[in-house]
Amino acid sequence: MASRHGLLIILSSPSGAGKSTLARRLRDWDPDIRFSVSATTRPPRPGEQDGREYFFRTPEEFNAMVKAGAMLEHAEVFGNLYGSPAAPVQAAISAGQDVLFDIDWQGGQQVRETSLGNLHALSIFILPPSIAELEQRLRSRGQDDDAVIATRMRKSRDEISHWAEYDYVLVNDDLDATFARLQTIVSAERLRRSQQPDLVEIVRRLNSEFEERS
Amino acid sequence: MASRHGLLIILSSPSGAGKSTLARRLRDWDPDIRFSVSATTRPPRPGEQDGREYFFRTPEEFNAMVKAGAMLEHAEVFGNLYGSPAAPVQAAISAGQDVLFDIDWQGGQQVRETSLGNLHALSIFILPPSIAELEQRLRSRGQDDDAVIATRMRKSRDEISHWAEYDYVLVNDDLDATFARLQTIVSAERLRRSQQPDLVEIVRRLNSEFEERS
Repeated sequence: MASRHGLLIILSSPSGAGKSTLARRLRDWDPDIRFSVSATTRPPRPGEQDGREYFFRTPEEFNAMVKAGAMLEHAEVFGNLYGSPAAPVQAAISAGQDVLFDIDWQGGQQVRETSLGNLHALSIFILPPSIAELEQRLRSRGQDDDAVIATRMRKSRDEISHWAEYDYVLVNDDLDATFARLQTIVSAERLRRSQQPDLVEIVRRLNSEFEERS
Repeated sequence: MASRHGLLIILSSPSGAGKSTLARRLRDWDPDIRFSVSATTRPPRPGEQDGREYFFRTPEEFNAMVKAGAMLEHAEVFGNLYGSPAAPVQAAISAGQDVLFDIDWQGGQQVRETSLGNLHALSIFILPPSIAELEQRLRSRGQDDDAVIATRMRKSRDEISHWAEYDYVLVNDDLDATFARLQTIVSAERLRRSQQPDLVEIVRRLNSEFEERS
């Protein structure tokens, strides 16, 4: 098997559309897929560990990283700063591992426009089958009160309005079917010429063979 | 299942690399995949039927089609004219059928640059595992004498030099494995946003739901 460049996989959706479940399934399928761990200035919630759910940073530390160009993307959401540190992503991609970004459209735009050498960003948007279903999923989590849910629903509408910026858009009306499509997409994108650094050497060898014949 | 736009699938390789076998397997897998039938000015060989292997045309007829913009691509090869008539391709794509072009790099370039409305061209190049193997496959057909084989080998080298213009490049060292990759690629490309005309309506419906809530 030829070595390959890792993919940047941008996965966006309104919350409640199944994105996190799909991301976890992708990693169950291929444990080599890395999740980009975001840095944030929001305080840790009970049970959250620095470097696992998030890198917890002070606003000063966060802004210093942005200034140093060490963030692939960053944004303020609900009054807190969030961003994707570039260094772990570059390390994984070079090692032939895909990196999955579970981010919103703002982050998606920034990662897509980033230029980290040979990086190929693949973007996928997950749509809910209906808004009623989306709200139902948010409520069934039982985490949020009505006001928070109303805020999330407004954000969902904004999020969905950016569907046309993505390479692939999947309607998650059936989790197994949607996951199968996701697997197919990731498998195919890994086969792209741009992801296969060994091709240059393979073609060089074929050309040497032609030379030897003539 | 949502309706979709058909794909233009450009398949190129030096002769003997397994392209025709792979194309046939694709159609066995999905009989809805159409092969673009080329027009040519070369005379029919025994057993060839007009409209099946080729549309056989006089040079005058052929050039009139080019002048009328009715060819997606055309080129002169070994003294004969070859081209891909646009009309059957447009009809198939609109009906949601993929059209496969078994063409060389010149044709591939022209089809890729064509602008027929919503057409998404997907290009795949098949490399042989070695040049010795390529020559072996040409010789084992028993169709051609040494001079013809030498000409084909020169054309193969020229063909291979264009590998980097393709979206995907597959080394055909194992027919079953290469075909499985081809299936994955075609399946994924069909899922692209650009191929899913129904998404606009789906998002419109989600937005109406948001409106009704507020």
